[in-house]
Amino acid sequence: MTNFTLYGDSISGNCLKPKWTAERLGMPFDWRETSVVAGETRKPEFLALNPWGQVPLAVLADGRTLTQSNAIMLYLAEGSALIPADAYERAQMFAWLFWEQYSHETCIAVRRFRVAFLNLKGDDTDRTLETRGNTALAHMEASLAGRGYFVGDALSCADIALVAYTRWAPDGGFDLGSLPNVRAWIARVENDLGIGTAGFQPATSFG
Amino acid sequence: MTNFTLYGDSISGNCLKPKWTAERLGMPFDWRETSVVAGETRKPEFLALNPWGQVPLAVLADGRTLTQSNAIMLYLAEGSALIPADAYERAQMFAWLFWEQYSHETCIAVRRFRVAFLNLKGDDTDRTLETRGNTALAHMEASLAGRGYFVGDALSCADIALVAYTRWAPDGGFDLGSLPNVRAWIARVENDLGIGTAGFQPATSFG
Repeated sequence: MTNFTLYGDSISGNCLKPKWTAERLGMPFDWRETSVVAGETRKPEFLALNPWGQVPLAVLADGRTLTQSNAIMLYLAEGSALIPADAYERAQMFAWLFWEQYSHETCIAVRRFRVAFLNLKGDDTDRTLETRGNTALAHMEASLAGRGYFVGDALSCADIALVAYTRWAPDGGFDLGSLPNVRAWIARVENDLGIGTAGFQPATSFG
Repeated sequence: MTNFTLYGDSISGNCLKPKWTAERLGMPFDWRETSVVAGETRKPEFLALNPWGQVPLAVLADGRTLTQSNAIMLYLAEGSALIPADAYERAQMFAWLFWEQYSHETCIAVRRFRVAFLNLKGDDTDRTLETRGNTALAHMEASLAGRGYFVGDALSCADIALVAYTRWAPDGGFDLGSLPNVRAWIARVENDLGIGTAGFQPATSFG
């Protein structure tokens, strides 16, 4: 008996966020591997479920659907320790989630996709993404000074959302060598989630 | 006696979101007009409050700060009717908030700023923003079919977030003429919020 079905692509950090959340919380679910690159999100049977043609997609037990990685994660995590009980800390968690989608995913995930999957590196777009990504990473490094996690003193949805693409940043050409707080935090969250160590593979491992 | 201080720029839809939310909920606050274009978010006294150098910024009564427009809005709206009580509807609201920051603000707000403030129109970037923005607007039009609001049957944070830049879309060169659902929804939300009619001014009105 599963609570829901999760359509996702294992090479997408966005898709792994709700997957890791459900696993962390011990919620049974069916994972349906759905390759974006292979066009599976554009097939009629998928578009019938999600006209947006995007993963992750959650289909609840009653057939209703949910989109947007961070929204699905928040839905699954409601009432759990992954959402801070304190109102101010909860607002900080939301701030990180919105920042992740606006200022982090748009450069770190995008550059990783271009470099590791499309072999596009060194052009003007790449340099812009590199500059923006390094700014985002530096902000994370400073924010983690003296802290184990981004909000309060425990793992929250903010960490899950941010680790998804940060742990793959080296595959996008980002150097984490001068960011000890970020590196230690990645290892900490990977350990908490039981997802192994991702970083520092060559780009070809994603080919 | 005010609950908090809100630093914001009145020409920024992101800044107006928490302002409208507080007004809607009757929460007393001090508004500190802070011009991005005039460099006021880069002054030392502002950076001392917010090292990110961004508005909106909320400074709570105890001095703690909050960033990110949608996160501040959610903090202010907690426990109010602006956040749906039903868990599924709440998740839908979150999905619209993340979609707004990823797929709407990044084209509709950005194009409006380029066209209305920088007089940049017709270049390659403008055409890309136009295409993306029209896709976002078409999605809103379809989603509003037979509905008064984006989630459930009442005004929520999703509407406040989405209306902020959608009502100014014509100033960015977007034509809402073929989007009757969007136009009716803008008027409905403007009326609910008591903020008057924004749309369809010439670009020079922002000069």
